[in-house]
Amino acid sequence: MDATATIELHSAASGASECCSLGVGPIGADEAQRSAGMFKALADPMRLRLLSHVAAQGCEAVCACDLTEDLGISQSTVSHHMKKLVDTGLLAREQRGKWAHYTVVPEAFAALRGLLEIG
Amino acid sequence: MDATATIELHSAASGASECCSLGVGPIGADEAQRSAGMFKALADPMRLRLLSHVAAQGCEAVCACDLTEDLGISQSTVSHHMKKLVDTGLLAREQRGKWAHYTVVPEAFAALRGLLEIG
Repeated sequence: MDATATIELHSAASGASECCSLGVGPIGADEAQRSAGMFKALADPMRLRLLSHVAAQGCEAVCACDLTEDLGISQSTVSHHMKKLVDTGLLAREQRGKWAHYTVVPEAFAALRGLLEIG
Repeated sequence: MDATATIELHSAASGASECCSLGVGPIGADEAQRSAGMFKALADPMRLRLLSHVAAQGCEAVCACDLTEDLGISQSTVSHHMKKLVDTGLLAREQRGKWAHYTVVPEAFAALRGLLEIG
């Protein structure tokens, strides 16, 4: 993978990793806002299905072209949903010629799992 | 705690626990719908703050009366948000006299953490 500027890692992921967990103590307004944004990205059935398709490939990048085929949805619908997942830092995006390719960002998932630790 | 019918454990929590994880393989439409509902309940900053107040008490029940005070919001706002958290199975509700009391449902959180395992 060409680990240059084409890979987008957004601040939301690192923001979530700064958080502790819901079980440690009451969280503040800023932390709640940031974490709610991460969960909002997951609060859509089609985004979860897209995410599971990418996550199932482990560290391998998945082409947007395969997602349209597998899920029977248009390229613009894939792009719309994937942008939200990239913006929140759950996925990384890399452009390879005509097609965008996506991989999971394990740190972002670990941060969310940590947030859901309740003691 | 009076563990009778006043404690509401809803099907969504057990539904999520039936799920595997996003990293195991592409999830189907039904599973995606159910899981998205759980994440939607978490996709609101005030609900996350309320949840963190309850989760911070471990297994102890938290009175709705304390939540209104701690967060400076009205009783009806607390009720509105807590209903969504109870409906998705993340919290259990028990009526004690005038006031509702809430506790976390650890199994529901464990199911969500499991869903966010990506291999």
